[in-house]
Amino acid sequence: MATHRFTPTAYHNVIGSLPPALHIADGDTVITETLDAAGYDKGGIQRASGPNPMNGPIFVEGAERGDSLKVEILGMVPTRDTGFTRSVVAGNVVEPEDVRTLPPGNRANWQIDRQALSARLAEPVAGLESFVLPLTPMIGCFGVAPSLGQAISTATSGEFGGNMDYRLLGPGTTIWFPVSAPGALFFLGDCHAVQGDGEIVGTGIETTFEVTVRLSVEKKKIIWPRGETADDIFTIGNARPLDQALQHATSEMLRWLASDYGLDKTAASHLLGQVVRYDVGNVFDPAYTMACRVSKAWLQRR
Amino acid sequence: MATHRFTPTAYHNVIGSLPPALHIADGDTVITETLDAAGYDKGGIQRASGPNPMNGPIFVEGAERGDSLKVEILGMVPTRDTGFTRSVVAGNVVEPEDVRTLPPGNRANWQIDRQALSARLAEPVAGLESFVLPLTPMIGCFGVAPSLGQAISTATSGEFGGNMDYRLLGPGTTIWFPVSAPGALFFLGDCHAVQGDGEIVGTGIETTFEVTVRLSVEKKKIIWPRGETADDIFTIGNARPLDQALQHATSEMLRWLASDYGLDKTAASHLLGQVVRYDVGNVFDPAYTMACRVSKAWLQRR
Amino acid sequence: MATHRFTPTAYHNVIGSLPPALHIADGDTVITETLDAAGYDKGGIQRASGPNPMNGPIFVEGAERGDSLKVEILGMVPTRDTGFTRSVVAGNVVEPEDVRTLPPGNRANWQIDRQALSARLAEPVAGLESFVLPLTPMIGCFGVAPSLGQAISTATSGEFGGNMDYRLLGPGTTIWFPVSAPGALFFLGDCHAVQGDGEIVGTGIETTFEVTVRLSVEKKKIIWPRGETADDIFTIGNARPLDQALQHATSEMLRWLASDYGLDKTAASHLLGQVVRYDVGNVFDPAYTMACRVSKAWLQRR
Amino acid sequence: MATHRFTPTAYHNVIGSLPPALHIADGDTVITETLDAAGYDKGGIQRASGPNPMNGPIFVEGAERGDSLKVEILGMVPTRDTGFTRSVVAGNVVEPEDVRTLPPGNRANWQIDRQALSARLAEPVAGLESFVLPLTPMIGCFGVAPSLGQAISTATSGEFGGNMDYRLLGPGTTIWFPVSAPGALFFLGDCHAVQGDGEIVGTGIETTFEVTVRLSVEKKKIIWPRGETADDIFTIGNARPLDQALQHATSEMLRWLASDYGLDKTAASHLLGQVVRYDVGNVFDPAYTMACRVSKAWLQRR
Repeated sequence: MATHRFTPTAYHNVIGSLPPALHIADGDTVITETLDAAGYDKGGIQRASGPNPMNGPIFVEGAERGDSLKVEILGMVPTRDTGFTRSVVAGNVVEPEDVRTLPPGNRANWQIDRQALSARLAEPVAGLESFVLPLTPMIGCFGVAPSLGQAISTATSGEFGGNMDYRLLGPGTTIWFPVSAPGALFFLGDCHAVQGDGEIVGTGIETTFEVTVRLSVEKKKIIWPRGETADDIFTIGNARPLDQALQHATSEMLRWLASDYGLDKTAASHLLGQVVRYDVGNVFDPAYTMACRVSKAWLQRR
Repeated sequence: MATHRFTPTAYHNVIGSLPPALHIADGDTVITETLDAAGYDKGGIQRASGPNPMNGPIFVEGAERGDSLKVEILGMVPTRDTGFTRSVVAGNVVEPEDVRTLPPGNRANWQIDRQALSARLAEPVAGLESFVLPLTPMIGCFGVAPSLGQAISTATSGEFGGNMDYRLLGPGTTIWFPVSAPGALFFLGDCHAVQGDGEIVGTGIETTFEVTVRLSVEKKKIIWPRGETADDIFTIGNARPLDQALQHATSEMLRWLASDYGLDKTAASHLLGQVVRYDVGNVFDPAYTMACRVSKAWLQRR
Repeated sequence: MATHRFTPTAYHNVIGSLPPALHIADGDTVITETLDAAGYDKGGIQRASGPNPMNGPIFVEGAERGDSLKVEILGMVPTRDTGFTRSVVAGNVVEPEDVRTLPPGNRANWQIDRQALSARLAEPVAGLESFVLPLTPMIGCFGVAPSLGQAISTATSGEFGGNMDYRLLGPGTTIWFPVSAPGALFFLGDCHAVQGDGEIVGTGIETTFEVTVRLSVEKKKIIWPRGETADDIFTIGNARPLDQALQHATSEMLRWLASDYGLDKTAASHLLGQVVRYDVGNVFDPAYTMACRVSKAWLQRR
Repeated sequence: MATHRFTPTAYHNVIGSLPPALHIADGDTVITETLDAAGYDKGGIQRASGPNPMNGPIFVEGAERGDSLKVEILGMVPTRDTGFTRSVVAGNVVEPEDVRTLPPGNRANWQIDRQALSARLAEPVAGLESFVLPLTPMIGCFGVAPSLGQAISTATSGEFGGNMDYRLLGPGTTIWFPVSAPGALFFLGDCHAVQGDGEIVGTGIETTFEVTVRLSVEKKKIIWPRGETADDIFTIGNARPLDQALQHATSEMLRWLASDYGLDKTAASHLLGQVVRYDVGNVFDPAYTMACRVSKAWLQRR
């Protein structure tokens, strides 16, 4: 199981059936440096345009339609001392008439301390003088080529993954995507140093990272992304409104609990009814993201 | 500041401008025993009919329209060894075509161990043999008389509170409701021994409690409920879809951060954008509930 | 079957189980003059405050929970030469970021020509110099006491009717409401001289009317309002988002087609799939309104 | 201005930046025969697979990003005596718990009388013995390549058009799409002989047509599709929930009324508030479709 250092020569604003930039074997590890969401690299040079330019696609040998691609996020190392955010919450996350009261959205710059693994606003903001955030790196946008030969903007998401902007998708987390094209065709980019629930300013702290992922093929059919952290398993739905994203995530969790944990719909209902957690990924992108999460403490894999 | 032991002689399926059952002074404490959501008391006798019969209303001296009623949840002691849930997730939380695959919903009984403070299904369910849940008591439905002399079903919720079914509304939490009628007219009931996010089976573990609350008047205008735990502050929006509930909660948080924490909309956006947490209260009732939560670690009250 | 001229001595901002202002027999006719949405009468005197003060409640002898109240709108005669609207579309009907570009909403006055049965803006607006609208009177808000003794704001709507703001609810139309309280307790008010789909400026042309309705009891259970015009039958759902309002209306239509027209779900699907019309009532109030409408040309009542 | 008879050699399940199958000049007319939604031709032979195989793309000389492609639907002639529908309403258009009561969805066959221009079910259905529908042909899915080089499934829709399933998109109607790629890259297919609002059974009467369209380039920027019939102008929004589709359509109409009809936001609000009509395109596909329609009787183009 080899390790590949992947340096893209081109970046993509869609996730789709494009010619592979790298071929790897099932189980190989890839180390690659991502641009920020606006296409700037670690040296501050613009290498691509937004939205969310992707590294990839990576063709994983053996991946066939109907399989799952397992993506283990082994590491995320920030590679730049600066990041940026939008300075104001999006119009769609406040009461409609309140949009009139929002200031215009600008770009705000952040300093990233890669020693201390923390971030702070580059220019002081009244009331936030001591606002220093520990880094909690995550991948904003990643996934595999969608079905039917589609190529879908990295501004949005779907069953194939994409721009989910979900806080738990960082180092130590494993995620599975449903494979719809030979080789899976994996893309990633748009990493965040920190991000709250909902990505409600339209960004996390956008910066560049060196990301290490291990990609493996599992001969197992899933419909929506599934994931696992040290503590939890989760499923992801991407849609609007949030209600529909929640439906997708819950249906996928019911399927998973049935197939892997031997829980029929009644048993799964008893479990979820009393212990489920729902996490809001993003409520900014065209498709919103909701995760359905269950502590592994309650589960015994069969 | 007196303590009142309040034993209702009638229960209500609406929250509204009904004749007070108890008058108390600002800052008094009330201890009262609630029925379960179906109207049964701690002895298993039906005292009222559902949905969610309420104790109240309690008239708090000095509360006027435009004030806030502060409710400190001082204690919740379970008073019965049994509880019940619905046995299957609600149709609205799964993909529509999946509703065809759900079994019919029945009532499931639970045993509550008041010594160990835990709950388990009364009848074994395959795969959940060792599913023993620590009690995490919470008030499912409480609030104050809504505006305009309205009386609104305890099945739903609004600015006035109501059937929010939000997991954090338990002992140690303080919540503020916007007062719309003289005396505020506080109601409570529908307590749960345990409940997951979303109340997706349509119930928590429904049982009876002795609840202790302290009620105080604050001369401060709010629009949606606000709350505080040991660690966090939060605001609550009640509406459908979840997107709109989230808008209400976020707008209320922006108002709160401005008035009490000196954060203008840009500062508040920087804060929320990177650290906000959204919690799903219920996605079962006619109005859904979303909480917007911020760790007090980031805040300095002015 | 008597005719009653009903002159209220009080008006209500809720629809609910209030003491009846008039008792009538099943099948009686009522003539009553309504205030405008802001509470002004035909002489321009404020008699009540908003929102949407109601005439009523009218107790209809023989109406019991589980029945339907049939309301035939026999006539609507405008009684004032002036009306008003809000001058700008509501924030929730445009893309969220576009709300920033909307001018502030003011009150605009209209002249009503009761001879010609037309309306025009009182002050000229560039581009609308020749904008003269034929009157298309309708009742914005009417219905019966909701279940559980509730009293619900006339700003919103539900199964009981309420502030539906649906364009077809004018003279010649019959509507049925589900009865939840003895006597049904019928309320009406908030009449519009003209209104587009969605009531997207938050008003129709708000003015005063003399309204004539015949009220009859039918021993038939319905869940959501049903209606009939010369050409069509329709059902109404009130909820947010519009998707849910549409679900309620469609489910009610399927029930109606089964019970009265002998169409099982497959036959009804063939019919609706190819000929159904959906009309947007309001997209301004807390609950939105969608009507599901079918031409009587396709139907043969059994 | 030439007329091209276009016979595809391949069909596409995406709308996107694919190699053109035909090049035409600005203003040329194209006559082409479409497959049905499942990929069968007029002879009943399967030529492609679903969903909604498209004829195209057609490259229109002179079309550049930022232009509009004007599509005049000059004619639609049915080319087969049979069509099909799904036999039951979709789960998402009824109340969630009602989905349990829906029969399984099957394919129903229809006879098309191309002389009489009518359609009827091939097998009798109780209660619908005399259900003979006049043909009202329309194009279910058409549009131009979306931005960023995307290729999007013909099951859904967006700013670029796509699977809108809107009843008014038939002969005599003109529609404009926003051009995002050189040559516009126009696709069409999925024609319906008849369809109700919402396409709530998931299909219209799906059959094959010979379609005649004239394609012209306008040097004018639009964001969402716009259209015109003999009587009305309309704009289209595609999104979920319907509320958001309605927002897009309304915002686009406000832009159109400003640029072409000299109506500022206040004047446009007065107009739309009292005369707008909203039509439901589809409520079945991943993105729903809402049209915002205004009678030309009220408008004077500048």
